[in-house]
Amino acid sequence: MKVAVIGATGFTGEKLIDILLKHPKVTISYISAKVQKPFYFASLFPHFKGKIDLVCDNLNLKKALAAADIVFLALPHRVSFLYAPYFLKGGKRVIDLSADYRFKNSSVYKHYYGTEHRDKKNLKEAVYGLPEFFASNIEGAQLIANPGCYPTASILSLAPLLKEGILNKEDIVIDAKSGITGAGRHASLDYHYAHLAQNVRAYKVFEHQHLPEMNHILGEISKKKISVHFSPHLLPIERGILITAYGTLKRKFSHSALISLYKKHYKGAYFVRVFDDLPQLKNTLETNYCDIGIAVKEKKIVIVGCIDNLIKGASGQAVQNMNIMCGWKQTLGLV
Amino acid sequence: MKVAVIGATGFTGEKLIDILLKHPKVTISYISAKVQKPFYFASLFPHFKGKIDLVCDNLNLKKALAAADIVFLALPHRVSFLYAPYFLKGGKRVIDLSADYRFKNSSVYKHYYGTEHRDKKNLKEAVYGLPEFFASNIEGAQLIANPGCYPTASILSLAPLLKEGILNKEDIVIDAKSGITGAGRHASLDYHYAHLAQNVRAYKVFEHQHLPEMNHILGEISKKKISVHFSPHLLPIERGILITAYGTLKRKFSHSALISLYKKHYKGAYFVRVFDDLPQLKNTLETNYCDIGIAVKEKKIVIVGCIDNLIKGASGQAVQNMNIMCGWKQTLGLV
Amino acid sequence: MKVAVIGATGFTGEKLIDILLKHPKVTISYISAKVQKPFYFASLFPHFKGKIDLVCDNLNLKKALAAADIVFLALPHRVSFLYAPYFLKGGKRVIDLSADYRFKNSSVYKHYYGTEHRDKKNLKEAVYGLPEFFASNIEGAQLIANPGCYPTASILSLAPLLKEGILNKEDIVIDAKSGITGAGRHASLDYHYAHLAQNVRAYKVFEHQHLPEMNHILGEISKKKISVHFSPHLLPIERGILITAYGTLKRKFSHSALISLYKKHYKGAYFVRVFDDLPQLKNTLETNYCDIGIAVKEKKIVIVGCIDNLIKGASGQAVQNMNIMCGWKQTLGLV
Amino acid sequence: MKVAVIGATGFTGEKLIDILLKHPKVTISYISAKVQKPFYFASLFPHFKGKIDLVCDNLNLKKALAAADIVFLALPHRVSFLYAPYFLKGGKRVIDLSADYRFKNSSVYKHYYGTEHRDKKNLKEAVYGLPEFFASNIEGAQLIANPGCYPTASILSLAPLLKEGILNKEDIVIDAKSGITGAGRHASLDYHYAHLAQNVRAYKVFEHQHLPEMNHILGEISKKKISVHFSPHLLPIERGILITAYGTLKRKFSHSALISLYKKHYKGAYFVRVFDDLPQLKNTLETNYCDIGIAVKEKKIVIVGCIDNLIKGASGQAVQNMNIMCGWKQTLGLV
Repeated sequence: MKVAVIGATGFTGEKLIDILLKHPKVTISYISAKVQKPFYFASLFPHFKGKIDLVCDNLNLKKALAAADIVFLALPHRVSFLYAPYFLKGGKRVIDLSADYRFKNSSVYKHYYGTEHRDKKNLKEAVYGLPEFFASNIEGAQLIANPGCYPTASILSLAPLLKEGILNKEDIVIDAKSGITGAGRHASLDYHYAHLAQNVRAYKVFEHQHLPEMNHILGEISKKKISVHFSPHLLPIERGILITAYGTLKRKFSHSALISLYKKHYKGAYFVRVFDDLPQLKNTLETNYCDIGIAVKEKKIVIVGCIDNLIKGASGQAVQNMNIMCGWKQTLGLV
Repeated sequence: MKVAVIGATGFTGEKLIDILLKHPKVTISYISAKVQKPFYFASLFPHFKGKIDLVCDNLNLKKALAAADIVFLALPHRVSFLYAPYFLKGGKRVIDLSADYRFKNSSVYKHYYGTEHRDKKNLKEAVYGLPEFFASNIEGAQLIANPGCYPTASILSLAPLLKEGILNKEDIVIDAKSGITGAGRHASLDYHYAHLAQNVRAYKVFEHQHLPEMNHILGEISKKKISVHFSPHLLPIERGILITAYGTLKRKFSHSALISLYKKHYKGAYFVRVFDDLPQLKNTLETNYCDIGIAVKEKKIVIVGCIDNLIKGASGQAVQNMNIMCGWKQTLGLV
Repeated sequence: MKVAVIGATGFTGEKLIDILLKHPKVTISYISAKVQKPFYFASLFPHFKGKIDLVCDNLNLKKALAAADIVFLALPHRVSFLYAPYFLKGGKRVIDLSADYRFKNSSVYKHYYGTEHRDKKNLKEAVYGLPEFFASNIEGAQLIANPGCYPTASILSLAPLLKEGILNKEDIVIDAKSGITGAGRHASLDYHYAHLAQNVRAYKVFEHQHLPEMNHILGEISKKKISVHFSPHLLPIERGILITAYGTLKRKFSHSALISLYKKHYKGAYFVRVFDDLPQLKNTLETNYCDIGIAVKEKKIVIVGCIDNLIKGASGQAVQNMNIMCGWKQTLGLV
Repeated sequence: MKVAVIGATGFTGEKLIDILLKHPKVTISYISAKVQKPFYFASLFPHFKGKIDLVCDNLNLKKALAAADIVFLALPHRVSFLYAPYFLKGGKRVIDLSADYRFKNSSVYKHYYGTEHRDKKNLKEAVYGLPEFFASNIEGAQLIANPGCYPTASILSLAPLLKEGILNKEDIVIDAKSGITGAGRHASLDYHYAHLAQNVRAYKVFEHQHLPEMNHILGEISKKKISVHFSPHLLPIERGILITAYGTLKRKFSHSALISLYKKHYKGAYFVRVFDDLPQLKNTLETNYCDIGIAVKEKKIVIVGCIDNLIKGASGQAVQNMNIMCGWKQTLGLV
């Protein structure tokens, strides 16, 4: 199977190529990015030296279409919807890592992404690519909206409780902590080493674009209207997201009963690991796992979930989706 | 004024000495720690070379009593109450940085610190040394229970809302993030660089000994029974605590109304800075400030507070207390 | 092929298991470590959850012998030579990651490791496992002395110049910078996060036990007596070694001539990458590569070499040696 | 005494203001920087909240001249020499933190800074502001060329040996390791947190502009032509420089003889601390000290020197120079 990576030079593009190069069933046949002039990809990312021989140039739609069976769009929001229609029309399967196809409701999109959606037609057909809940839709999809990093960790951590209807939905708090790669590769003083080291800060409180995404999907899974109290924080680490979710159970449950419930819900979900203890971020780095643990006292509950934001939170999950779409084992190239 | 530092080699003892050396009104006349054999303090902590000439030896109660007017106990919990009575009986003023005198109720102490309190007499007389709320008691106190680091940040962040009675007290969540020095200087694999770097984890959820302390003091300030939902996290940073508090206001308030309210409450409190934006941890490092900011949407509120755990969260606050006890300006030696 | 890992809980043991689990030709049939009581390996290292089901217990020589075809000793120095003879006598192939079999001359060993060598017989037969120079010996070896991390980076960086005889051997300086995992997993204040963060220090200058190793092997390769001026430094990073070597060429060479020379020497050496620019440490992390670059001005030369200390500097190289011993492709399980 | 800081928003400008605010003899009366529009300085750097009330605007030469007795230029190279003449002509004393006045020879300047020097007249009068060697010249100077960070650490580490004539000058190597603030505050992918974390790299080998500065000053101090082999490295730390210098002594010296020699040379130099052990970077952070230690074996010698690049390597040294110029104690405001 031949795959194209459009937007190869961002953090997710780079990691996607890293994963795809090790995948036993695919060949990367085309890469592109916004560049000043073409260059050997491995010359910009020397860790790829000896592993990839492709030249990276500005997107040439025709060439990309001819070269690939599956197209990964690792593009910024508001750019993906400009190119996706072309590939879909050309009969290709598209996995979009941006937010452009994550909302059925284009007015929510407009509110959070600040622009009118430009491809409402395909928006309706897009499938939200969270395999642990939507695998059957993913199988037959032509267009996948790959989930955001915060929503992936948050939804996987809370869905079992909400689906079972045992968690009050009025007082859910999600305190999320993320490494800096989640913000994308941009030259900015905000991401300067000296400004992040030894620092922690909350940002975009009440205004983060991932908030409606997690509310929407949690609502869909639980068949209720969900509105969590969510604050993202930036930590002095490169990679990873750890979310701490707080809530109140409708009635008392033992720790072991809750662990059993989670294990039951994630039976067969290879990439969710339920722990008896609270998980640590580090164990998920460089993996496609979401690790989850629970603490409970009386009706008060804390759920901790963590992922590598570039893998389960982006490129790994994209490959997991590809595996499902192609009828392969979900874990192919990912363990 | 002559001061003694008992427990000089921990993180708080070391920082206390650093602050006291720059203080214009005091001389460090005695230091001690649990040691194998006496050594020049500056030989263990070379950054003090040329600044302090004292030898550090095991505690000699008599010598300490003779040498100092004010005694700082930078000792572990369950050790301070063994020595404090001696100095108090000798007529000295004591500032205890451990938790030993923070609870009026010795059975709470026993529950969280695992041992019977050994100095219940002085426990009753001890004053909780949070100057922003208890300055008048501190002035005349002979024994100060210097607050814990998490409680300092949490109480200062929430007290104005609770005192005004405008925050629901049923659904308060405090998600706290701390640097590693908060755990004390111990040789343990848990604190090994390679286990902390690129990692984040929650710990002692529902069980942290600072939880009853913040509940107790917030209750005292607000004249209500308070029980917050508190989870501490360990971050890959050396210093500092940032807490993110979540709650629901009883009715809607504008952001500016809340900022005014905080500024009013902290008028004259030199070491609390109220910000229009959410504060960043880094701006408080190496200072005695607690920086506070607020975000609000409808009735949902987020309060972010941050401090340097070794300064406002320990040794700086201890010196602030000393300044008050001695009738000096609170800021002496601290700005 | 069945393999045993003796010393599974150190940094190198843990990484070795990580690599072996992904290797297509081997099964880990036995693991051991010095433990208080047996435990599931994945319970101590949760990142292995779902990947390895073995129990880790104290070494049982008989069981280990019966279980494995190849035995990896990831033990401390002065311990390997106690167990290696047993496995060798039992007909197994042994790859020792300690320093115990790296010196033909047991008196040098005694000087630097402070004890009489206890297995001088096998010492003579051991092969130094640096595949780029000793592959043909490794093929038939029964006992491999896997190289130290500093020597691996230093030898690979300097050997081509010394072998060609174009570098003065009197004034070679090697300034080495290492992450903390090189020091092993020990509970010590020296490795406490707060003591390493924002710090850099030189250590064991003139006295590091890797100095005679690199002198000895560089001497063997170049057929000359080599004595470099070597200082190791500890950096606030987890992983990796970058060495900066300084010297004087016997006559002037252009940069491109030197690059050609290195490329010629490392033709076919899959895991040495020669760069036109100076390499950065980060590109080698989580890989078995040694990246090398050169700067030259008149006769003065700087060579920069870097590796992941736990992979090319330990466990990756051990697997590379195993691949050669088994007649497999060197890169199997390593790319 | 009133002082102006021109270039207030760079790392050195910010730190200079921090130091000057605590200085007992000066008031900051004017600050400027290249800005889009005027702003309260404390609003950009919230850690200054409550400490400084000045507005930062683009440089107004007239206002600055009127406002200050001493002018600090914390400007980029190639900018200082545009403004210094104006303040000098106006009778002010100028301390320039850029490289513009460090070379008597304007052709060396041109070679390394890529432009013709625009103020050759004042260049001749400028005094190199390394107080440990040039205090008597600094006293009466009107224009100080504040030393570079690498030269400060390197010169202080090597000068005693070279002055005594006991070190071979042909084979001196200086391997320098620096934190990122040395590169200035610029929005660049090179300084992105994710590109620096867990990374180390050499840069500008043979081409760094501080090389001729250290050669020139070491030559002046030792009355010999000096040409060191110098490679700077960038580490994942914010602050500090540690240099490791390697060389060969003309004859054997004991460690204690060398330490005595250094102590003799730096007698009365308050900010140089000579250690029996090798110093660690961390002990110099947030101080104006240069810490130095030595290791020696036969004729081979290693000297390790470290400083805080923003303090002894820039703004602290600038204030030390001001103290000397004003006839104050060197340590005023710096300890």
